Amino acid sequence: MQKYLLLIIVGLGLAASAAYLLAAKPVAAQTEQSSAVFDADGKLGLPTGFRNWVFVGAPLTPNGLNNGKANFPEYHHVYIEQKNVDAYLKTGSFPEGTVIVKELTRVLDPTFPDGSRTEPSGRGYFNGQYNGIDLTVKDSKRFAKTNGWGFFTFGHHPMPYDKTAAEKPVSECAGCHIANVAATDMTWVQFYPLLRDKPGY
Amino acid sequence: MQKYLLLIIVGLGLAASAAYLLAAKPVAAQTEQSSAVFDADGKLGLPTGFRNWVFVGAPLTPNGLNNGKANFPEYHHVYIEQKNVDAYLKTGSFPEGTVIVKELTRVLDPTFPDGSRTEPSGRGYFNGQYNGIDLTVKDSKRFAKTNGWGFFTFGHHPMPYDKTAAEKPVSECAGCHIANVAATDMTWVQFYPLLRDKPGY
Repeated sequence: MQKYLLLIIVGLGLAASAAYLLAAKPVAAQTEQSSAVFDADGKLGLPTGFRNWVFVGAPLTPNGLNNGKANFPEYHHVYIEQKNVDAYLKTGSFPEGTVIVKELTRVLDPTFPDGSRTEPSGRGYFNGQYNGIDLTVKDSKRFAKTNGWGFFTFGHHPMPYDKTAAEKPVSECAGCHIANVAATDMTWVQFYPLLRDKPGY
Repeated sequence: MQKYLLLIIVGLGLAASAAYLLAAKPVAAQTEQSSAVFDADGKLGLPTGFRNWVFVGAPLTPNGLNNGKANFPEYHHVYIEQKNVDAYLKTGSFPEGTVIVKELTRVLDPTFPDGSRTEPSGRGYFNGQYNGIDLTVKDSKRFAKTNGWGFFTFGHHPMPYDKTAAEKPVSECAGCHIANVAATDMTWVQFYPLLRDKPGY
């Protein structure tokens, strides 16, 4: 009996919490869904916490295989928040406000011309230092001209990264996504097994 | 006034929840901390949900750079639960029960002998299909002979993976960790920027 009384009190408490929260925050829900924060000039703030998001893939374009100067040096760790991964898996498109972070790392001290080195696990590539962030945000109104996505970079260099970023010109980022991956919501899902093959977590 | 009444009810509800949960689960806390589940024969069950854990690094040993037969073909995506990453960052060692999952993927359809291919982002490597799981569990009593860690594989092949795994002999896994990374709690933190360089999330 005491158990049921406790459960009733818990239930009342939770119902009251819900009512209170709904009453207290009637407006801000829309913008709260996104990790993207823009300033008055339309510049995007550096995101935080993304290394704790869902990792979806690690394309690697070593400088050693790209005439010493890869466009994206060199590992690309790609992270998306779970709620947005889940929505993509269900619907085939990302919700408004979705942020996709591509964090770069260099390869660890190359000893071969192709950028690779030998470790006990074999010859290959290993993550060196963090080396910058490229990022895309879905906002169909703000970025209507580029299929609903805006593209930003916080620098291709070691930490600390740039604190804010202005939208990049179409020719530098969006153009390539429009040409190649417009059919998969502007995202290279063909390189991300979790999104491409849909095995779940 | 109505607001404070609601807050009081919420508080009572939460206090009752806490009291109920503490009273109802006095014993199971210790084993609940680990994602490792062993059967009566000491075999480990295939973990679930790990693609949602914290990703720490992606070493890559392509078959093309390892005489066609890498020991770990080919990308190694390494995942650890956040509570255990946090503990390592704080103390320099992992808590009892920590599970580290290394999920393999093949490289996507190679066109060069080294396993690489060319995409709009440059020449390099891209994640192909999932290709197996190696896993290590920290349990200082169960695995006292191998520095407190047990080593398992659920197969180096596409999904579905093996449902259970027996501990691997020292010569196949633990030996290499003991020889190379005993000082960093048997873990290759030199390849994982989040653990090596400690930038936070």
